[in-house]
This record gives sequence, C-alpha cells and structure tokens, in this order.
Amino acid sequence: MPVVAVAMPGNGQLADALAACLGLERGAATVRRFPDGESYVRIESPVDGRGTLIVCTLDRPDDKLVPLFLLAAALREAGATSVGLVAPYLAYMRQDRRFQPGETVSARHVGAWLSQCADWLVTVDPHLHRITDLSQVCSVPSGVVHASPSVAQWIRAHVREPLLIGPDEESAQWVGAVAQHAAAPFIVLSKTRRGDRDVEVSLPDVGRWRSHTPVLVDDIVSTARTMIETVGHLRRAGLAAPVCVAVHAVFAQTAFEDLRSAGAGDIVSCDTIRHPSNRIRLAPAIAASVRALLPA
Amino acid sequence: MPVVAVAMPGNGQLADALAACLGLERGAATVRRFPDGESYVRIESPVDGRGTLIVCTLDRPDDKLVPLFLLAAALREAGATSVGLVAPYLAYMRQDRRFQPGETVSARHVGAWLSQCADWLVTVDPHLHRITDLSQVCSVPSGVVHASPSVAQWIRAHVREPLLIGPDEESAQWVGAVAQHAAAPFIVLSKTRRGDRDVEVSLPDVGRWRSHTPVLVDDIVSTARTMIETVGHLRRAGLAAPVCVAVHAVFAQTAFEDLRSAGAGDIVSCDTIRHPSNRIRLAPAIAASVRALLPA
Repeated sequence: MPVVAVAMPGNGQLADALAACLGLERGAATVRRFPDGESYVRIESPVDGRGTLIVCTLDRPDDKLVPLFLLAAALREAGATSVGLVAPYLAYMRQDRRFQPGETVSARHVGAWLSQCADWLVTVDPHLHRITDLSQVCSVPSGVVHASPSVAQWIRAHVREPLLIGPDEESAQWVGAVAQHAAAPFIVLSKTRRGDRDVEVSLPDVGRWRSHTPVLVDDIVSTARTMIETVGHLRRAGLAAPVCVAVHAVFAQTAFEDLRSAGAGDIVSCDTIRHPSNRIRLAPAIAASVRALLPA
Repeated sequence: MPVVAVAMPGNGQLADALAACLGLERGAATVRRFPDGESYVRIESPVDGRGTLIVCTLDRPDDKLVPLFLLAAALREAGATSVGLVAPYLAYMRQDRRFQPGETVSARHVGAWLSQCADWLVTVDPHLHRITDLSQVCSVPSGVVHASPSVAQWIRAHVREPLLIGPDEESAQWVGAVAQHAAAPFIVLSKTRRGDRDVEVSLPDVGRWRSHTPVLVDDIVSTARTMIETVGHLRRAGLAAPVCVAVHAVFAQTAFEDLRSAGAGDIVSCDTIRHPSNRIRLAPAIAASVRALLPA
C-alpha cells in the first residue's frame, strides 16, 4: 500500500508534488488552534499499517513544532508504521555553537527532539557550519538535498555572464558549488557581525568584473542585512544591480522590501519557504531524497 | 547553597514571590526571539552544582514550550543538578480524551514532554476530568495546588450572602470545594457544548436565592461562552449581577469584554495567568507545594 503524505498547513503544494512524483497517497489532516491558543490535530485518512510522512517547513518554528509533534503522535496512534518528516527548511541549525557561557547548542536539542517525532528526515541545505553533518544533530536516518544544481540551472537559464558572489565566508560552500554547476566565476567577501541586524562587509577589487552581472547567493536570507550591505558595496563599485538568490527565503519583517529598496535587481528564491520570490522549484530534488528513505 | 529560580518572560513577579517565601536565589536569564522567529536563551547566573527551577505559566502554550525546553537544556548544560518547573497554568490538560477517531490525547503527550524537560513540576488545579491524576500524564514528581481555599477566602471577605454557582458538571468539583471552604450554598448547572464557542446552559429554579449574590466559579475561563450564557440566564431569572470567579483567566480574544457586556458583576481571577482581573494571590499556596519538591 502506498505511503500516505500529510501536510501541515501551508505545505499542501509540496505534499501534492511529492505524492505525484513518488506515487504516494495524499492524506487529510486537520491542524488548527483552539481559541485559547492550543493546537488541535486530527488525522482524517486511514493510515493503519501504512508508512506516512509529514511535510512541514520549519521557518518561524516555535509555533509549528508543537502541532507537528502532536500530528506525529496522532499518526502513530492511528496505526502508522512509520512517520517521516520532510522539512525543506530546518530551523535552529544556525545555533550550532555555544558562543557565550550560559547559551546552549539549540541545533542539537531541536535535532534530538525532531528525531523523537520522526523516523526519518529530509531537508534542504541545513545551515551546517560548525556542525558539519546532519547526523551530528539528528539520530534518525536523514537526507540532505542540495539546492546548488537547481540554483545553477536557474542562473544559466536567466542571467547573462554571471559573476557569483558569496557575501561572507559561511556562504563559500554554497556559492562555490553553484558556480561550479553554473560554470561561472565566483568571489567570496568577508563579513563582520556586530549584532542581529548590524553587519559590515568588505569588498575586494571588482573592477575587472564590470561587464558581468553580479549574482549574490546565500543559503538563508533572514534580516537580509548581509545582502543589503553587499548590494550597496557592489553598486558603489560601479557594478550592475545584482541578482539576489536565496536558498531559504526567511525574509524577516520588512527584509524583502528593504533589500529591494537597497538596489537589488531580481530577487529569487528556492521554494523551501513560501514567498513571492520563489522561482526555483525543488520538489523533484526533494522527491529523489525522500525516495531513498521511504519504507520498502 | 540555595536553589536558583529563573523566570520565563512575564513570570518574574511569581519568581520573586517564591524566592522571598522560600529563600531561593533569583537567577537571571535572557529569553528572546531572533528576527527569524527562533528563540534564543542564555543563563546569566551561576547554577553549577545548584538545584534550579523555572517559573513559566503555560497559557497560549505553543510558542512558550520551545524556549522553555531550550532554557531547561541550558540550565543543565550550565551545571544545574536539577530543574523544576512551576507552571501555574498547565496547558493541554483539557485534551484528555480521543473524542473523534484520528485525534490524539494531547494532555498525555504534552505531559510526557514536560517530564523530559523538568525533574519535578508544580501547577494549580489542572483541568483533570477524564484523566483523574496528574501522575497519569507526568512521569516526574508533581504537586497540585488547589485554588479553592484562596478563592473561598476572597469570597468570604468580599461577597455578602454568596450563592455559589458552577456553570456545568465539570465545574462541580471546584465549586463544591469552594462552597465548603466558604461555608456557602451552591448549585451546579448543566451544559451542552455544540462547538468551540457555542454552548447552551440549563438553569434550575433559582427563585429561592433572590436575596443572595450569585458567584459563578469555574476553573478555566477561555472564550467565556459558558459564563456568558449562565450570566444571561441568572439575570433573566431576576438574580443580581453575578460575581464571576476564574481560577485560570485565559480570556481568549475579546472574552473579558464580552463577559462584562453580558451583565457580569465583578470579574475576579487568581493570578495563575497575568490579567487585569487578578485579585487572588496564589504565591503562598504555590510556595508550600514547591517546598515539598525542592531538592534537600
């Protein structure tokens, strides 16, 4: 019997796409809030004796994690033999080190907690930097989808003479991979972070690239301070309005409008978090990773 | 060395009161949100080798449970030998049965999850109805504070000739206990619930009580639909504007204003959830229960 795919609110489109790619059955579930703010979940399709998966991207995670946890419990109680989790954006992975005494490595705790909810996990480019492998935070089998081939494909199809630019050292891994797939040159800048929203970016001499279209690529764009700072430097250096590409379009508060006002050209993202900038579809790549983890 | 009491945001007043009653040390912690919606926690007082407790009431629970979980983890990593939880309002206890196929008993899952976070737990009158004892959902030692003596004391001091009224059968346990402590007569009505906000209440003959002040008592007032319906019946039966007493003042959305407009007299609550109606202080009763669970 086919595996049943259930979507948390807002994740129906990816669940539909995965079901279509992989021959899954789409299951129905109610997930809503009571007037007092508690979550209510109910599985409405038969899952007894079936493998299941939940599709739930985890931006703005705190009020999603509790209903996700209850939904996984409800699936098991309804007889599901396994519960997988497809979370295109995996929250808390940036908190991967104790930067100050008294802090905790939240990435590990959230990873351990998700490993209690789900029997396997698929995500797209988790922000692993100091922790280098998802298995260091998740104890269940996991699959990591790399967005770089899809991003590179989009750049090749849409940007004339691209010069790829990574705004900071942490972005080097993404930008390098995209540049290689796109067969384009790339440079990586260096960044000093002074606070959540206060960032300074240094810029090497870019005079020789004036005929190229700068393409800024980063994995997570949240406040967009790093991209905004970089766009300003590039514009002052006489380069064209850069195309800005985010793998994960978090775009906190007014970040998207701020980036546009700062002189960005096209702003494009993968569809791991629903946003008007979504132009790069990752469902086929996610489906390939899910296929490898589905119960036989 | 004294136990260290740490407060989640909004819980400082009770933490201060417990520290004063029990000779605890007040610890400092930062709990805030990053612009992307993730929680950040940091313990700022030394807790190495110390017992600790977190004060965190759990109304509107979903976005409190994740930072609570991270704060407990941070305390342990900072060397705390134990982490207790004082949650005057314990969320999810009303979801204590599978009412429809496909639902889950959320009370059990949230109880199990809190039992992973904390070594012991103190709460005030959890809404236990079909589950009769907190130990059925929490595997760690727990203490239940009963608000009824404090509520009764307030009624005796402030209401002339009270007639206690429980709006439904589920409230019988609270109202009976309060009436006994207050040495006042009581009646219990019966309720039919047709939806989250759609409630019908039946009323026995109350003619003989016209000289009394009706006092409606319920454990949780959320949408206040039950109390509003009851207030309407009492007013139409010619009784005085009833005093409305809530143990837990959840008051979802406009519920407080709605109850006032419906003809309630004084609206009074215990301070388990911060609300302008708080008039009944439970800190001394909570302190007594915490004392029994503190590490020696």
